[in-house]
Amino acid sequence: MATRARAASRQLQALSTADRIAILLRIAELLEANEASIMAENAKDVEQATGKIGESLLQRLVLKPNKIRQLADGIRAIAKQDEPIGRLLSRTEIAEGLVLDKVTSPIGVLLVIFEARPDALPQIAALAIRSGNGLLLKGGKEAVASNAKLHALICDAIEEVAPSTGRDLIGLVTSRDEIDALLKLDDVIDLVIPRGSNQLVSYIQQNTKIPVLGHADGICHIYVDAAANDAMAQRICVDSKIDYPAACNAVEKILAHESLAGPRLDALLAALREAGVTLHGGPRAVAALGLPAAPSQRHEYSSMDVTIELVSGMDEAIDHIHANGSGHTESIVTSDEAAAAEFLRRVDSACVFYNASTRFSDGYRFGLGAEVGISTSRIHARGPVGVEGLMTTRFLMRGTGQTVEKDKGVAYTHKALALS
Amino acid sequence: MATRARAASRQLQALSTADRIAILLRIAELLEANEASIMAENAKDVEQATGKIGESLLQRLVLKPNKIRQLADGIRAIAKQDEPIGRLLSRTEIAEGLVLDKVTSPIGVLLVIFEARPDALPQIAALAIRSGNGLLLKGGKEAVASNAKLHALICDAIEEVAPSTGRDLIGLVTSRDEIDALLKLDDVIDLVIPRGSNQLVSYIQQNTKIPVLGHADGICHIYVDAAANDAMAQRICVDSKIDYPAACNAVEKILAHESLAGPRLDALLAALREAGVTLHGGPRAVAALGLPAAPSQRHEYSSMDVTIELVSGMDEAIDHIHANGSGHTESIVTSDEAAAAEFLRRVDSACVFYNASTRFSDGYRFGLGAEVGISTSRIHARGPVGVEGLMTTRFLMRGTGQTVEKDKGVAYTHKALALS
Repeated sequence: MATRARAASRQLQALSTADRIAILLRIAELLEANEASIMAENAKDVEQATGKIGESLLQRLVLKPNKIRQLADGIRAIAKQDEPIGRLLSRTEIAEGLVLDKVTSPIGVLLVIFEARPDALPQIAALAIRSGNGLLLKGGKEAVASNAKLHALICDAIEEVAPSTGRDLIGLVTSRDEIDALLKLDDVIDLVIPRGSNQLVSYIQQNTKIPVLGHADGICHIYVDAAANDAMAQRICVDSKIDYPAACNAVEKILAHESLAGPRLDALLAALREAGVTLHGGPRAVAALGLPAAPSQRHEYSSMDVTIELVSGMDEAIDHIHANGSGHTESIVTSDEAAAAEFLRRVDSACVFYNASTRFSDGYRFGLGAEVGISTSRIHARGPVGVEGLMTTRFLMRGTGQTVEKDKGVAYTHKALALS
Repeated sequence: MATRARAASRQLQALSTADRIAILLRIAELLEANEASIMAENAKDVEQATGKIGESLLQRLVLKPNKIRQLADGIRAIAKQDEPIGRLLSRTEIAEGLVLDKVTSPIGVLLVIFEARPDALPQIAALAIRSGNGLLLKGGKEAVASNAKLHALICDAIEEVAPSTGRDLIGLVTSRDEIDALLKLDDVIDLVIPRGSNQLVSYIQQNTKIPVLGHADGICHIYVDAAANDAMAQRICVDSKIDYPAACNAVEKILAHESLAGPRLDALLAALREAGVTLHGGPRAVAALGLPAAPSQRHEYSSMDVTIELVSGMDEAIDHIHANGSGHTESIVTSDEAAAAEFLRRVDSACVFYNASTRFSDGYRFGLGAEVGISTSRIHARGPVGVEGLMTTRFLMRGTGQTVEKDKGVAYTHKALALS
């Protein structure tokens, strides 16, 4: 299945931009034209799952009436984006009549593993088609009927518009056993993208040699500097926690400068408590503020809980983040621009903010269009990843018969040329 | 050692550009000032190894008299390159007063494993220092005295110019056992770069979860099209093979359009034979030309041998490359520009050339300055990799107190700003 997806992806790449766009537009049409039968399959899944899975998971499984149109509109938006394949990144004259281009190119075959929500399937498929990649999908077992229907419609559209590419471009894997087999295929699958719980991501990371794009932990910090504006610090800390406490970009620990202790810190803690947040303390905060001790120095609550800790200043805050963070997103609140600049320069995380909520760490909010995930890996793509993260590069060189001959065959010029 | 290297790398990143450059210039000075003692340590290694390792390996071990100055000059050239850290890649206005930058950033801690040649040590150390990365080095056991001396001088320079960074930035690992322990440290080492034989690279790839930058195979193809200029095809095929037959970018298989069979193909084969190349055949070439059969359809000779095969045209050539190549470098020889454009567009390899020798696939020839290796991975860096491949990115966002509040906290503008 993976080998066939790669062969089909090469056919997809050989199509014109217009043809790849036509596939996406046809998918959007077919989704809308088949709304009734998609909803019927989804109703079967929902009926089957009711009482067996938690309420929040069940809510994610349900395709609401206007969801199909939203999905179709999203796919049309992806179709409108600039062509991501073959973008010229650099052009160098190597020698007279010998020009080297670096261009963007699809990665190859992606394996995307997602839980519950069937609406992820057409979104991911659209991103893969737009970026010229083959795709293997593994959806949640609760959504099996919905996923089968959506997958069939997408394959219909591909076959109809681009018979040379065909249905093999996107494979749907249904059983759990198949996943473990797929994770062994490091010679035919180029990238795994798990979208789901921390447990899912950790499991994938520990059970494959294929590169994994994602993050297991989101242990985000806010450092409230001595020079912070108090009202701003309160707003940012509260929003970073309560906007969506289960999100990976929610704050889990607030490091307060020790000079804030007293009325300024009390007001911050009061604002958090008023917003419904339960406070825990690091060792110094337990001693100084009488807070109950946090479970550990490195704890992801994913709930309306946060750890408060006191630090002696910037150096200790940064060391604490490097020692206990997950390299996802950290923010400083300060009115001291030099302190902000130092924090942005020194903190070694995918996203580092100054006077802004950690919740902005998101592909949609960053303006990347659709998001395939947030990566805390230091290799390939880091932070929120859009279609750009599904691309690699190729070097293309056009010559006029040049040979190397122990580096005496040409006179190297190595001149950067304009990208015209 | 890896944890200390990461801590030291963060101190290195906190230095000014001038300080990082000063370390490199001091290394160059110390190498020249200590030429005699370096040569004395190298002489011990050479004496020890003589008669125990092959002549070509022994030649790589010997530091020739002008080599130290060459090394120092190379390090001064790396010091002159543009600052690679903190380069602004994109700038986006997210909302009024909220600006997102994407900047380059060091990867973290690199593990470089190299064989025999001690001159690789200062080059790699200079690249790591320039790019702000921590480094663990494992050299060949034959070069143990040379490596220890070079390593000590580099650490002296770091300690002298930047005591806050200190000697821990670059660790030297000497025993083979330590390597297997290091390959397990996927939480503290970010990238492994093996520089050496195919066997070494394969061993590393199969024994670590850390991303590996490199290539195990270099099975490069040339497709000689029906519309090729015969003299150019002969020159390119000969150079691609004989310029350095053991290199990964040497051609291993020449696919000739079947219409060339007869005097045109005979002339190409004669040119190769005259240059000292031994010819083998794929199934069709064995039948049509009476060549002895190649060991397999996918064979890396790394010697003055090459496989010849006939193909019916472009489609078959590309399918053959995708089925039997290693995704390293392929070249087409043709005077038909449409055929060349199709080959460049469709062949899914790190480097794809038109009317040029495969031997140009090299960091120095590409104008990247020093090269850390050639990658056939589709993730992170692909093809010849310079200092750019030792960088990752961070997102930095500067706000004025913005919060998300279910995406009602700001009005998103998502406007690309000029990189000033």
